[in-house]
Amino acid sequence: MTQGFFAELTTTELAGRLRAGETSAVELTRAALRAIAELDGELNAFTAVDRDGAVKAAEKADAELAEGLDRGPLHGIPVAVKDIIEVAGLPTTMGSAHFADHVSTSDAECVRRLRAGGAVLVGKTTTHEFAFGPTGDSAHGGPSRNPHDTTRITGGSSGGSGAAVAAGMVPLALGTDTGGSVRIPAALCGVVGFKPAFGAIPVDGVFPLAQSLDHVGVLARSPQDCRAAYRVLAGLRDAPSRERGETATIGWLDPDLLHPADPEVTRIARAALDGLTVREAEIRDPELARGAYQGIQASEAYANHAERLAEHPELYTDDVRDRLRASARIAGWQHVRALAARDRWRREVGELLSRVDLLALPTTCVTATEVGRREITIGGTGTRVFTALLGLTSPWNVAGVPAVSVPAGALGGLPVGLQLVGRPGQEDLLLAVAARIGG
Amino acid sequence: MTQGFFAELTTTELAGRLRAGETSAVELTRAALRAIAELDGELNAFTAVDRDGAVKAAEKADAELAEGLDRGPLHGIPVAVKDIIEVAGLPTTMGSAHFADHVSTSDAECVRRLRAGGAVLVGKTTTHEFAFGPTGDSAHGGPSRNPHDTTRITGGSSGGSGAAVAAGMVPLALGTDTGGSVRIPAALCGVVGFKPAFGAIPVDGVFPLAQSLDHVGVLARSPQDCRAAYRVLAGLRDAPSRERGETATIGWLDPDLLHPADPEVTRIARAALDGLTVREAEIRDPELARGAYQGIQASEAYANHAERLAEHPELYTDDVRDRLRASARIAGWQHVRALAARDRWRREVGELLSRVDLLALPTTCVTATEVGRREITIGGTGTRVFTALLGLTSPWNVAGVPAVSVPAGALGGLPVGLQLVGRPGQEDLLLAVAARIGG
Repeated sequence: MTQGFFAELTTTELAGRLRAGETSAVELTRAALRAIAELDGELNAFTAVDRDGAVKAAEKADAELAEGLDRGPLHGIPVAVKDIIEVAGLPTTMGSAHFADHVSTSDAECVRRLRAGGAVLVGKTTTHEFAFGPTGDSAHGGPSRNPHDTTRITGGSSGGSGAAVAAGMVPLALGTDTGGSVRIPAALCGVVGFKPAFGAIPVDGVFPLAQSLDHVGVLARSPQDCRAAYRVLAGLRDAPSRERGETATIGWLDPDLLHPADPEVTRIARAALDGLTVREAEIRDPELARGAYQGIQASEAYANHAERLAEHPELYTDDVRDRLRASARIAGWQHVRALAARDRWRREVGELLSRVDLLALPTTCVTATEVGRREITIGGTGTRVFTALLGLTSPWNVAGVPAVSVPAGALGGLPVGLQLVGRPGQEDLLLAVAARIGG
Repeated sequence: MTQGFFAELTTTELAGRLRAGETSAVELTRAALRAIAELDGELNAFTAVDRDGAVKAAEKADAELAEGLDRGPLHGIPVAVKDIIEVAGLPTTMGSAHFADHVSTSDAECVRRLRAGGAVLVGKTTTHEFAFGPTGDSAHGGPSRNPHDTTRITGGSSGGSGAAVAAGMVPLALGTDTGGSVRIPAALCGVVGFKPAFGAIPVDGVFPLAQSLDHVGVLARSPQDCRAAYRVLAGLRDAPSRERGETATIGWLDPDLLHPADPEVTRIARAALDGLTVREAEIRDPELARGAYQGIQASEAYANHAERLAEHPELYTDDVRDRLRASARIAGWQHVRALAARDRWRREVGELLSRVDLLALPTTCVTATEVGRREITIGGTGTRVFTALLGLTSPWNVAGVPAVSVPAGALGGLPVGLQLVGRPGQEDLLLAVAARIGG
C-alpha cells in the first residue's frame, strides 16, 4: 500500500523534531496536504481540505514556538476531524445529502480544545451517513476505502479518520464512537483507536447519533499519541502518570459469548497478549449488553431524525433510511427495559473490572469486508456485517468505560485489532498496557 | 355522612392521650375495627382487615409504653395500608384478579418502618387495579366510595386510604402516588395527602406502576400528622424543625395552563390562601410536564405488565387492559423525548422554586365525579375524568418534588383540595404552611 509522510511517525516523535528545529508546523502541514492530494483520490478519506487555513494555522504555530509559546504535545501537529464534528468555516456534511451545503459557523468544543492546544486542522474526514453504521461505505460522498485493500471497507463510522491515519496522511484524527465507530476503523485499518469514558470529552458541536452512547475519540499511530490527544481533549491539567502497566492483570473475554467471531481473528488478538499476565474472565449475561445497546441506540437515533425522515426521506441513503425506520419500531416499554438492562450491565462490567485491571478481546469479529457487503459467513453461519463489527465494541459504550483498539497482527494482509477495556479514571494504565502491545 | 371514631382526631392528639393514660392502643384499635365494621360495607375502603393481628400489635404497643419503651409519634396508632404494599401475612391483591389469592410473605420496607415505629396495622385498603388509574373505581374488589357521597368516586389510586381516613376509620393510611394517587383521593375525600420527594421513602415491597415516578405517601387528618408519619417512613432522625411558615412566599399557578379547571374549584382553592403572601407564578412550558408524564408513565407501566397482559389479558378489568394496550403504542423514540422533556421540566420547576418558597394550585380540576364516569364537561368543553384528576398533580411526580393536598373548602357538598408544592429538603416548611391552611 502507498503511504504518506506520517506512515511511520508518531506525534510524540514529531513534537520532538518540531522543538529540535528539525521540522516546522508548515513543513508537516504541507506534507499532510501533499499526502492527501496524492492518496485521497483512491481512499476518499477526506470530505474537505482546508489548504489555506491549515498553512496559516501552521505558520502561527511556528511563530508561537519561535517566541517560546509552547501549547503542548499537539502544537503544530496536523489533525483531521470527522465530518459530523463542526469546524468553523468548513463544510460539515454529516455524510448526508441533508447537510450537503452546510458550512459550520462555530467550532465544536473538542475542536476548540484542539486549536487551543496548537493543533493544525487540515480537513474533514468521511463518515458513514450521520455516523449511523459501522462500515463507512454508505455516505453521500461515497465510501471511504481501506488503504490495505481499496476494495475493502475502512470500517466506520469514523472511516475517513481511520484511512487518513493508516495511510499516513495525518498523524492524528478525531472520530466519534457510539457503538465502536472509532475502534472499528482503527482495527480494520491497522491503527490505534481510543474511546475514553462517557462524558470525558464534551460532545457539544458533534451531531448526535445516540446521546447516551456518543463519545468523542481519537485515532493515531500509537497509544501514547492517543493519550496526548486525550489529555488535550479532556482538558486534563494534572501531570500525566508514569504508569507503565508492567503488573496489570488482564482478563480475556471469549468474544463468542458476545458475537460469533472468526477463530483466526480471535487467535491473532489473543496471541498479541503473549508475555502479559492474562487470565480468563467471563461474562455472565452478554444479552444485557446486546439488548441495552439495540434498544437505546435505535430509540435515541430515531428521536434525532424523526422530523427529518418524515419531511425528506429521499435525502437518506437506502441503508440508513431502512435502519432508521426499523428503529422507530422499538416500543417505549422496550426502551425502558433497555435502560434497565444497561444498569445491570454496568454493574456486571464493574464487577468484571474489580477482579482484573483490564479486559481484552478482539475489536471486531472479522477483518475488513468488501465495500457494500452486508452479509457474511463466520464459522459456516451467516451473519450481518454490522453486528459482526459492532458486537464486541458496543458493550463498552453501554458501560461507558474507556476502551482502545491496537493493531494485533494481520490475517490475509488485513489488520486485526485487539481491544482493551479499562476502568474510568485509569486511562493511563489502559493506554500504557496498550503501548506494550501496539506501541 | 356517617363517621367513625377518628373523624375529628389527629395522631398528634391521640399520641398525647395515649401517653396521658386517657386511652390505650387496644382501645384505639378496637375503635378502628368497629368503625370499619360499621362503615365499610358502604365505602369498600378495605380489602382485608387483620382483627387478631391488630389487637395483638396493640397489646404489645400498650405493654411497651407501660414499660417505658416509646417508639415515637406513631406508637399505638392504627394505620391502614394500600393494597399494593406488601404486609406479611395479609393478602395483597394489587386490586387485581391476577393477585386475588396472593398473600404477602414479607413486609414492604415502609411497612417495616411503620411497625418499628410502633404503628398498629389494621388492614389493607382498596386500590385502583395495579394503581393504574386516578378514580379508584376500577378494581377486582369493586370501587371504593366517597364518604361525602357514596355515588361518587374517592379518587385514586389510593382510594381506600382516602375513604378510610375521611370516614374516621383510621387516623392515618399509607398510599402511593405515581401521578397524584395520594393527593387526588385526599382532595376528593377532604383529608390531607402528602407525597414526599422522589426516593425519600423506599418503594421496596411496593408493586411498581412506573418506577421513575412512584412515591410512597401518607393520608391523614392534618399536615402535622403527615409530617410525623413522613419522618418515621423516611427514617429521619434529626430533630424536627420549628418551622412555622409565617414568612413563606407562595407562587400561585394558574391551573388552566396545565389542564382546564372548574373555575369554582380554582376560586375555592385560591381563597384558602387568603392572609398568606401570594404572588403569581407562571409556567413557561406546561407541555413539558404533560409530555414527560405520559411517555414515561405509559412506557414504564407497560414494561411492568407486558408478559402478564400477553398471558392473561382476561384477568384485567377492561379499563386497565385498554389503557395498558394503548401504553404499548408509545414508541421508544417518544420515550427518549419524554425523558428529555422531564429533564427540561425539572429545570423549569427548579427555577420556579428559586423565586418563591412554595407553589400553590388546586389539587384536581374537578370535585369527585360519579363512580364509573369517564367523560366530563368543564367550562362547556368535554374532557376525560382521568386527565382532569391527574393534570395538576402529575407534574410534581415528573419533577420529583414534595407536594401536599389540604382541604380548601367544599363545592356542592364535595371537598376541594389545595395543593402546595415545595423544594426537596424543605418538607417542614411545606407542611408548616399547609398547617396554616388545612390544619
